Amino acid sequence: MRQSQMIIPTLKETPADAEIKSHQLLVRAGYIRQTVSGVYSYLPLGNKVLKNIEKIVREEMDKAGSVEMLMPALQSSDLWKQTGRWYKLGPELMRLHDRHDREFALGATHEEVITSHLRDEIKSYKKLPLNVYQIQTKFRDEQRPRFGLLRGREFVMKDAYSFHTSYQSLDEAYDKMFQAYKNIFSRCGLNFRAVIADSGAMGGKDTHEFMVLSEIGEDTIAYSNQSDFAANIEMAPVRVTYEESKDGFKKLEFIDTPGYKTMNQVSKFIEQPLENGIKSLLFKVDDRFVLVLSRGDHEINDIKLKNALGTSEVELATEEQIKQLFKADAGSIGPVNVPEAIEVIADYAVSVMRNVYCGANQTDKHYINANIDRDFKITSYQDLRFIQEGDPSPDGLGTIKFAKGIEVGHVFKLGTFYAEKLGAQYLNEQGKQETMIMGCYGIGVSRTLAAIVEQYNDENGIKWPVAITPYHVHLITVNPKDKEQLELSEKIYDQLQMENISVLFDDRKERPGVKFADSDLIGLPIRITVGKKASEGIVECKLRENGGEQEDFEVTSIVEKINSLIK
Amino acid sequence: MRQSQMIIPTLKETPADAEIKSHQLLVRAGYIRQTVSGVYSYLPLGNKVLKNIEKIVREEMDKAGSVEMLMPALQSSDLWKQTGRWYKLGPELMRLHDRHDREFALGATHEEVITSHLRDEIKSYKKLPLNVYQIQTKFRDEQRPRFGLLRGREFVMKDAYSFHTSYQSLDEAYDKMFQAYKNIFSRCGLNFRAVIADSGAMGGKDTHEFMVLSEIGEDTIAYSNQSDFAANIEMAPVRVTYEESKDGFKKLEFIDTPGYKTMNQVSKFIEQPLENGIKSLLFKVDDRFVLVLSRGDHEINDIKLKNALGTSEVELATEEQIKQLFKADAGSIGPVNVPEAIEVIADYAVSVMRNVYCGANQTDKHYINANIDRDFKITSYQDLRFIQEGDPSPDGLGTIKFAKGIEVGHVFKLGTFYAEKLGAQYLNEQGKQETMIMGCYGIGVSRTLAAIVEQYNDENGIKWPVAITPYHVHLITVNPKDKEQLELSEKIYDQLQMENISVLFDDRKERPGVKFADSDLIGLPIRITVGKKASEGIVECKLRENGGEQEDFEVTSIVEKINSLIK
Repeated sequence: MRQSQMIIPTLKETPADAEIKSHQLLVRAGYIRQTVSGVYSYLPLGNKVLKNIEKIVREEMDKAGSVEMLMPALQSSDLWKQTGRWYKLGPELMRLHDRHDREFALGATHEEVITSHLRDEIKSYKKLPLNVYQIQTKFRDEQRPRFGLLRGREFVMKDAYSFHTSYQSLDEAYDKMFQAYKNIFSRCGLNFRAVIADSGAMGGKDTHEFMVLSEIGEDTIAYSNQSDFAANIEMAPVRVTYEESKDGFKKLEFIDTPGYKTMNQVSKFIEQPLENGIKSLLFKVDDRFVLVLSRGDHEINDIKLKNALGTSEVELATEEQIKQLFKADAGSIGPVNVPEAIEVIADYAVSVMRNVYCGANQTDKHYINANIDRDFKITSYQDLRFIQEGDPSPDGLGTIKFAKGIEVGHVFKLGTFYAEKLGAQYLNEQGKQETMIMGCYGIGVSRTLAAIVEQYNDENGIKWPVAITPYHVHLITVNPKDKEQLELSEKIYDQLQMENISVLFDDRKERPGVKFADSDLIGLPIRITVGKKASEGIVECKLRENGGEQEDFEVTSIVEKINSLIK
Repeated sequence: MRQSQMIIPTLKETPADAEIKSHQLLVRAGYIRQTVSGVYSYLPLGNKVLKNIEKIVREEMDKAGSVEMLMPALQSSDLWKQTGRWYKLGPELMRLHDRHDREFALGATHEEVITSHLRDEIKSYKKLPLNVYQIQTKFRDEQRPRFGLLRGREFVMKDAYSFHTSYQSLDEAYDKMFQAYKNIFSRCGLNFRAVIADSGAMGGKDTHEFMVLSEIGEDTIAYSNQSDFAANIEMAPVRVTYEESKDGFKKLEFIDTPGYKTMNQVSKFIEQPLENGIKSLLFKVDDRFVLVLSRGDHEINDIKLKNALGTSEVELATEEQIKQLFKADAGSIGPVNVPEAIEVIADYAVSVMRNVYCGANQTDKHYINANIDRDFKITSYQDLRFIQEGDPSPDGLGTIKFAKGIEVGHVFKLGTFYAEKLGAQYLNEQGKQETMIMGCYGIGVSRTLAAIVEQYNDENGIKWPVAITPYHVHLITVNPKDKEQLELSEKIYDQLQMENISVLFDDRKERPGVKFADSDLIGLPIRITVGKKASEGIVECKLRENGGEQEDFEVTSIVEKINSLIK
């Protein structure tokens, strides 16, 4: 394509509202333009990379046996009311009325629509399992759209849905999708992890998030430095064998801790490390209260606590509730002499502690040298804390490290939630009605685009991986007024097109400096420069990847040269 | 693809709400399903044909030098207010509010968005002309959605926009798009005409509609039986050389026509043919009244009248206005003794008439044997009537015939309307600000899909043209319980896939009758049936196109056979 026929409005300055690299570079290099907050147009280069990603997604989904279809954005509120999502989703769900005042949602996802199709069309176990996907535009009215394509209000997603007669069949589909996702993100050149995630409150089973590692990610991933274990830190089990302390029991002491309320304050005041203290938090669990203990340097993980207590909601007790029950401030409560009827549970790490300090259930008082069983009782030990860097990996291989991640994909064993709500049933082999079992599988296509740019850039611009780049070759004529340079460029342009090598030909009448800067910004992998040596049939080649190194070569070998570089 | 992995819910019965063939067949053959009035999901087969059409559109648009991009569906109301379309478009324009109560339109087209991009990014004549397109989902809240994909509320369009510094440059782009459209619809196998259309009130110049000929079309096309002339009947010029009458002037007579008001009534009463009478219609044109004459068997065309009078609005005078001005009923007015200050114009056909009958400007009275110049005056003659079947074609080649058409594409020289409203200016070679000149070019992609089915079907189902078909081959095993049949089918399935021949393999455990009926309904061009002669290595081949003829052939030659058929 001739650059003169394209709209590639490059910018020298970084747009004021663009906080992260992908947003800055996609705007500066002329790939996207915002039309209104959180809504973007993909200019020709942006559209090309989007389509390249879509192609990879299609190929891998097809290969994994999923079948493409296309569902509408306009969705009747009726379906959403049946699943309850009409009420549960707040203003993120975009809503409108038609001319007859009927309510519609603009699809944020398509569980409702696809489940209603299967309910209406699939009546027998013989027609299951099925797995369908679409690549389609989604809408979500973000409270605060930001980060360019990473958190927009209109975006391109691939969403897939599978339907089964057994959990075993769901597991098989899930594994296939899992593998397809690994293939997709690998082909996109991404450094990513498949991360164990929280399946939430919708009755689902397993779920993984595919996270692209990036400093600007909003999620923290705990991963092993020696295996492929990775989990959202909320979901990473702690498998530490804590060493029993060998110290003898010391005498319990009751001390003043005037105004010292936090673990850190108390630890400093009594000059003992955090690890010697017990942190005591009172939680309201359904209608009762539970005192939850952890080692002073550990953090209690709500999700683990919920799972341990078999409930879907836990919340910290209020100051008032604590006062009423303990007659003490929150900063001074502890496990010694807890009010009756309050259960005390603890994280495993607490079980081996000896001679600890802890709140004394009187405001501004603490105990030191308290000991389990001698001074207080614990009903049960559980895995309740967040994993930490340096902990052993739960799979026994290596040590945990933390990284930030951008979620680009999600696979989820949904179970029967939607099928039950919408009545998606089939006749089983015995002629009995059963509810379909579902999985769903999403990829943020436009988000993946941004994530790639986050991982592929330098101070001069984008550096596209070959599989995604809008064109393989950037062909630049240094001086188009020089007849020899222009003719040779045109010849090369024709030749590359004939050989099906995709090429962007900078035929603009701009200064060479402008062309080279734009070229770095746009970030095509191979640059061919036709300059002064055109008359000798020599051109320059530079790879975007490795900075400034130019290499002269004879134009006669250009196709070979480029093909070997693309490989 | 194995049919067992697809969702192809075929129906025996025609859906009650489906009035036309394409709607009936696309639903019955399992290509689409309505989710809510005028909104459809494309099931896997429907998605395949949609994507095949999109591919043809992309190839031809790319070839014609248009560059693909992608704009959002969510559009700020601000832009639409600037062009006035926010107010002009009624409830068809779907509107919504975001969580901050800002107004949005769901894009019905993208003139506003693309013009705002060009305004912001293109500052110099050096960067023009430009031509961009997108394939994207559009929304229009039809008063009465019907005819399946032909008039839906969410649909896929290809829309292109070109920007120029001169009308000559626009003309060139228009011609290229025109040719691209001809290529696209030809490749889709459609019988269509490029029809001269009305450029409407937005100050545009030339415009053509691409019409697929079909009885269910809502527009009437006047076309030549010997050339490629075709026009919306509203737009077809009449180029008839009327023959001068050789009769001598007869004596003017004043007669009673009691209660006879229409041309037909008067013609019968006085026993003279319609062609001998003059029809007189009073129009209100801006602030004045004009009496418009046509031959009794001709119809006045509003659009021609507007153009002739150089105005954008004409309307028939009311009964009351006529009474006031002529002191006579509408059915009795005529050109003899018209009130002063009322201009009289006539269609060309009137100029050669002799001894005519016409209203006498007294209720229930007519003249017979009235003659131009002797009895009444005409200010000017114009082309004012609708063309009729049998008229010579305006290009001088052949005779006019009428046909009904489905509009599938539209090319339009927009001019400066949008660029002016949105301030899309550039600096010309002299450094002066000028307004960009635009063209726009639309194709209803999902509508084209339906139009193809309208032209390709028989009583048993769809008959896809090779370029559009979801798969080339339908492979059917008569009895999958017969091991030889099943094995041979699997072998053929593998082989065809290896040879990149797209194949739908009916591996379902259904009766042969069901499979064949479904196969006719689905409409793939080539059917390969593996039946009793499998053991001899013989299979049957049938073309969907020519009804029931089966042909046996040896399975060893299958790839050759199919490839030659596809060609």
